[in-house]
Amino acid sequence: MLKVGIVGASGYTGAELARILCNHPEVELTVATSRQYAGKPLSHVFPSLQGRVDILCEDLQVEALVDRADFFFTAVPHQTAMDIVPQLIAAGKKVVDLSADFRIHDAQVYEQWYQAHSAKDLLASAVYGLPELHRDAICKSQLVANPGCYPTSVILGLAPLLKSGLVDPETIIIDSKSGVSGAGRAAQTGALFCEVADGFKAYKVGEHRHTPEIEQELGGLCGKPVTVSFTPHLVPMSRGILSTIYAKAVKPLSGLSELYQDYYRDEEFVRVCPTGQYPATQYIRGSNYCDIGTKFDPRTGRVIILSAIDNVVKGASGQAVQNMNLMCGFPENTGLRIVPLFP
Amino acid sequence: MLKVGIVGASGYTGAELARILCNHPEVELTVATSRQYAGKPLSHVFPSLQGRVDILCEDLQVEALVDRADFFFTAVPHQTAMDIVPQLIAAGKKVVDLSADFRIHDAQVYEQWYQAHSAKDLLASAVYGLPELHRDAICKSQLVANPGCYPTSVILGLAPLLKSGLVDPETIIIDSKSGVSGAGRAAQTGALFCEVADGFKAYKVGEHRHTPEIEQELGGLCGKPVTVSFTPHLVPMSRGILSTIYAKAVKPLSGLSELYQDYYRDEEFVRVCPTGQYPATQYIRGSNYCDIGTKFDPRTGRVIILSAIDNVVKGASGQAVQNMNLMCGFPENTGLRIVPLFP
Amino acid sequence: MLKVGIVGASGYTGAELARILCNHPEVELTVATSRQYAGKPLSHVFPSLQGRVDILCEDLQVEALVDRADFFFTAVPHQTAMDIVPQLIAAGKKVVDLSADFRIHDAQVYEQWYQAHSAKDLLASAVYGLPELHRDAICKSQLVANPGCYPTSVILGLAPLLKSGLVDPETIIIDSKSGVSGAGRAAQTGALFCEVADGFKAYKVGEHRHTPEIEQELGGLCGKPVTVSFTPHLVPMSRGILSTIYAKAVKPLSGLSELYQDYYRDEEFVRVCPTGQYPATQYIRGSNYCDIGTKFDPRTGRVIILSAIDNVVKGASGQAVQNMNLMCGFPENTGLRIVPLFP
Amino acid sequence: MLKVGIVGASGYTGAELARILCNHPEVELTVATSRQYAGKPLSHVFPSLQGRVDILCEDLQVEALVDRADFFFTAVPHQTAMDIVPQLIAAGKKVVDLSADFRIHDAQVYEQWYQAHSAKDLLASAVYGLPELHRDAICKSQLVANPGCYPTSVILGLAPLLKSGLVDPETIIIDSKSGVSGAGRAAQTGALFCEVADGFKAYKVGEHRHTPEIEQELGGLCGKPVTVSFTPHLVPMSRGILSTIYAKAVKPLSGLSELYQDYYRDEEFVRVCPTGQYPATQYIRGSNYCDIGTKFDPRTGRVIILSAIDNVVKGASGQAVQNMNLMCGFPENTGLRIVPLFP
Repeated sequence: MLKVGIVGASGYTGAELARILCNHPEVELTVATSRQYAGKPLSHVFPSLQGRVDILCEDLQVEALVDRADFFFTAVPHQTAMDIVPQLIAAGKKVVDLSADFRIHDAQVYEQWYQAHSAKDLLASAVYGLPELHRDAICKSQLVANPGCYPTSVILGLAPLLKSGLVDPETIIIDSKSGVSGAGRAAQTGALFCEVADGFKAYKVGEHRHTPEIEQELGGLCGKPVTVSFTPHLVPMSRGILSTIYAKAVKPLSGLSELYQDYYRDEEFVRVCPTGQYPATQYIRGSNYCDIGTKFDPRTGRVIILSAIDNVVKGASGQAVQNMNLMCGFPENTGLRIVPLFP
Repeated sequence: MLKVGIVGASGYTGAELARILCNHPEVELTVATSRQYAGKPLSHVFPSLQGRVDILCEDLQVEALVDRADFFFTAVPHQTAMDIVPQLIAAGKKVVDLSADFRIHDAQVYEQWYQAHSAKDLLASAVYGLPELHRDAICKSQLVANPGCYPTSVILGLAPLLKSGLVDPETIIIDSKSGVSGAGRAAQTGALFCEVADGFKAYKVGEHRHTPEIEQELGGLCGKPVTVSFTPHLVPMSRGILSTIYAKAVKPLSGLSELYQDYYRDEEFVRVCPTGQYPATQYIRGSNYCDIGTKFDPRTGRVIILSAIDNVVKGASGQAVQNMNLMCGFPENTGLRIVPLFP
Repeated sequence: MLKVGIVGASGYTGAELARILCNHPEVELTVATSRQYAGKPLSHVFPSLQGRVDILCEDLQVEALVDRADFFFTAVPHQTAMDIVPQLIAAGKKVVDLSADFRIHDAQVYEQWYQAHSAKDLLASAVYGLPELHRDAICKSQLVANPGCYPTSVILGLAPLLKSGLVDPETIIIDSKSGVSGAGRAAQTGALFCEVADGFKAYKVGEHRHTPEIEQELGGLCGKPVTVSFTPHLVPMSRGILSTIYAKAVKPLSGLSELYQDYYRDEEFVRVCPTGQYPATQYIRGSNYCDIGTKFDPRTGRVIILSAIDNVVKGASGQAVQNMNLMCGFPENTGLRIVPLFP
Repeated sequence: MLKVGIVGASGYTGAELARILCNHPEVELTVATSRQYAGKPLSHVFPSLQGRVDILCEDLQVEALVDRADFFFTAVPHQTAMDIVPQLIAAGKKVVDLSADFRIHDAQVYEQWYQAHSAKDLLASAVYGLPELHRDAICKSQLVANPGCYPTSVILGLAPLLKSGLVDPETIIIDSKSGVSGAGRAAQTGALFCEVADGFKAYKVGEHRHTPEIEQELGGLCGKPVTVSFTPHLVPMSRGILSTIYAKAVKPLSGLSELYQDYYRDEEFVRVCPTGQYPATQYIRGSNYCDIGTKFDPRTGRVIILSAIDNVVKGASGQAVQNMNLMCGFPENTGLRIVPLFP
């Protein structure tokens, strides 16, 4: 049994890691940290885990952590991650980091959108953990930067199109919508039920920090720098992201659905909708699936891609476990064959 | 007191007309039709109206209707409206029709997106009832075609930009999100709570019937035909539409918010957000406001417009009453100074 | 025009007072306090009020407040209210206090459920502001203690039964359900969207502080001390309270609905459902109504009462304005003829 | 592999059976019937099942059914079940029936609350399928009547108290609250999103058909006939039931939580909350757990029990699979160790 630790267990992604790992036959959760809830059982913080996860939250320094597990998920805010991860790596541990700190290869770009980076030397070896794009590198990596939730939906949605050169990358517009769990579990007025329920809004218009991450990976797919419009919105639901993506086709297209089905033929966690059908977040709730629908509109010459994930699973903790499976040689889908919960 | 009738009172727009009219000092609701609920008080169908609206639903033919009121709101499905409206007009009544049947000036376009039109002769005199664009014509009209909910949000959102020629009309992409009341009150699986709650999806991608209506009015604003991408989505909320609109600027722009404030300076029902702020449907719930936010993104050279309305009010019944006020010489805001309900 | 001040304007009840007062023809809002948002327009805190409420939040001491208005709503937490209200009263102002500090006549009972009381001398003259029970006293009062939200629904629901002696007061069980706005606008994990949405729970079982307030008023109605079971629950909705109330009848009953209709014959804001119909919070949303349904169950010999209010309106700010109207000699319904918003 | 059939696969309980069974290692789903969707893949009706459940909906007569599987779940409306089940039993199949038709032992009581019963001869051998109460009988049974959702929450909540004689059965009041999936998937106005969202109401007050089922089992627990007050309510959430149960204690009580923990010591699917903590439906979502909290209130001498289940799992399909496991000799928790999904 692999001994696994969660650093930052009392947020939604931490709880979701615990939910997934407790049905994972190859691992044992041996340590879970939380400053706020130190000394309390994790199942007290999240009563959903009662009877299933039997571990205390602890407030530990990295020195103490390294003796407790061989594999770590760091589910802490960016800037905090770059303090912890290097020490874990130096101690020979394998790490999947769920923050943004090791996603951007170019430190200058990172510092432009975030703040100064104190562990730039790790950027070269960190692998961007989207298995459908970088599986081989993930398998060999000691440090995987787990992708952001929005980028996961967008990159999987656009990869087949960009790889095949069928759209003009300069025309890409991404209109994304997320459930509220993306805002985290910290108390803040903007995420209160009454502020969010029965309403809809955009936020960080043209300024969201997932933009450079999206542009880095899309640029990699089409072999040249890409600049995109990206607008996130807040949906009154707990989980789920739907990205609606527009791009000008280089010529009239047909057979888009088949193109996608072919591209993702061997990918268990990507489900391509038949022509005329589109994904919905309620059909992937709680699962590691990314559902994708496609449309070429002859009136405008544009392609429209709809891509749906559960932001807490494929957009965070599920993908993190998928990466762990690859890094540790377990079958990739171990612990992840959760069927979506509908309704 | 103007005698007013509602044809099709048992849908959500019918109920909303009753809600607004019962606080309108110049009118009296004298007839309300509903086939399904004939013989029942309207306040039995909608207990919210108990003690405020004291009228029975009736199943009447047009011949009987015309003796009962001088002004009519027809809140029936398209295709049904074109049977009823001509008779009301012939009887000398003023009519605001809330269906799509008289919105499209070009019968050929209508028939392409809907079905055959049986009252084409009225198309020339019907006025598209967006007061902010066509106030003078509405004042003089006997038949006003009340705009669709999505088009209201989109056209108000784009008018200042198109009038000033600051964006390329060929690059317009409209990503709209609507609450579930837009689907109406008829029993259907797709609008059940469990199918919609805690989920998000697109529908009628590239095929929604509001497209030609949007293109007609945008074309009018910029003086040439326009083709747009328009994708509607379903939000788990009862009321509200937010449209996110993208267009390429013809040059770097500044002062967008001021441009909009200036354009809508005399419009009571359009509120322009200051720079850096964006609208949300929860801030216009239950009111006749259209809130608009703007952003020029120098990275992409695109303008992003956010436009929010309550689909049942400014997107339907409130705008219908606004049109009635204009057609009858009442102050335009009579009965419409409802403050949004938040939270 | 009466000059009116709101002390504590940035909570939900403060915002709701502003929403109601801005359509009230007899008053002018001249001052609004908020420590947190001092210097900001109230319409910036609540964009729903944009264009309607044009006042800055200020952080003022009571000495400065008294020069700014003649009537005050104090919408601050209990314990804070007992510091402010005495000074306003001493300055000759009329006050409706929305906290719990002046609701309990017996200081000992208050101190048992809350904490020490520092303004006991005002308790004798403060009137419990439920107009349907204490209208005459309210009209003559300088200080009205606005009832709690749960107690309003419960007392109105039970008054006709207790007055007529038809049920055994020792058997009363109150199972109440509230929307999340009752938890206020302060940032707290328990009121986050993700903690509350798609879920249901009880809280403060057998310990809620509205219990003594309910018992005081029910005791007054039946002329002897009453002890009740009271369990509040949290519903994933923003507004509304439904109380389900059980009591053993002293004999088989019929004509309950008529009894209630008779009792509330002259009350504009209480609507009694016909036999076989029951209230729902969605039918009173945003309005000052209390809707009540009744049932005698011959199988068990129990009466079941269903009572619904909007906790922010009849349960707080609407009732506060109703009290102000009575205290100032305005028609009782001024500014309060808001029709419920459905859907 | 046991061949299993679902009769009535296109409702929510049918879909949930498919969700659970596709991760069950001992069974194979070999037939699924649906009149409405005959010929379509079940994963087309429920896209959540895409890639996981590969079966076509069929419209079959019982004669054809019996050749296709050895074990059947009948998830059809009451009255329909009593037509189908006898034929399956006669053909030697084992059956878990999810309707009400075989839950009530006394045909006269059934006919009083429902309609005439056409398969009374099966009533004597049918076992009420609550494993925590009737495990031994279930193991030996060919026909198990799966309990109703409300009764499951109520009976598990009261069993320890009634068995120990600590409360007066004549004082039991049950106030239950259910998510909307309990209303099924058939199109009906009352279950539309806009009718239910942001609202709360009671229904079938004193008349719900789960009452006799509750009374039968509670009566069995305390050894004499019991009459209860039972009021169901509708919560704007998809899944979950919370029952708040009141009863007069025969004496002052302490150690309630310990009593319950002891009673349910060997039950994997009942989790008893520590003193001072209460269950919430969001903590059992998607799982087979029943969470129970207890309180003795010395002020009133009443016990208050809170009992939470997922109505679609422990209240229907999960419990049905639990019964199947018992009837077929599989470990009782096979396929049911789903961790609740939170948030």
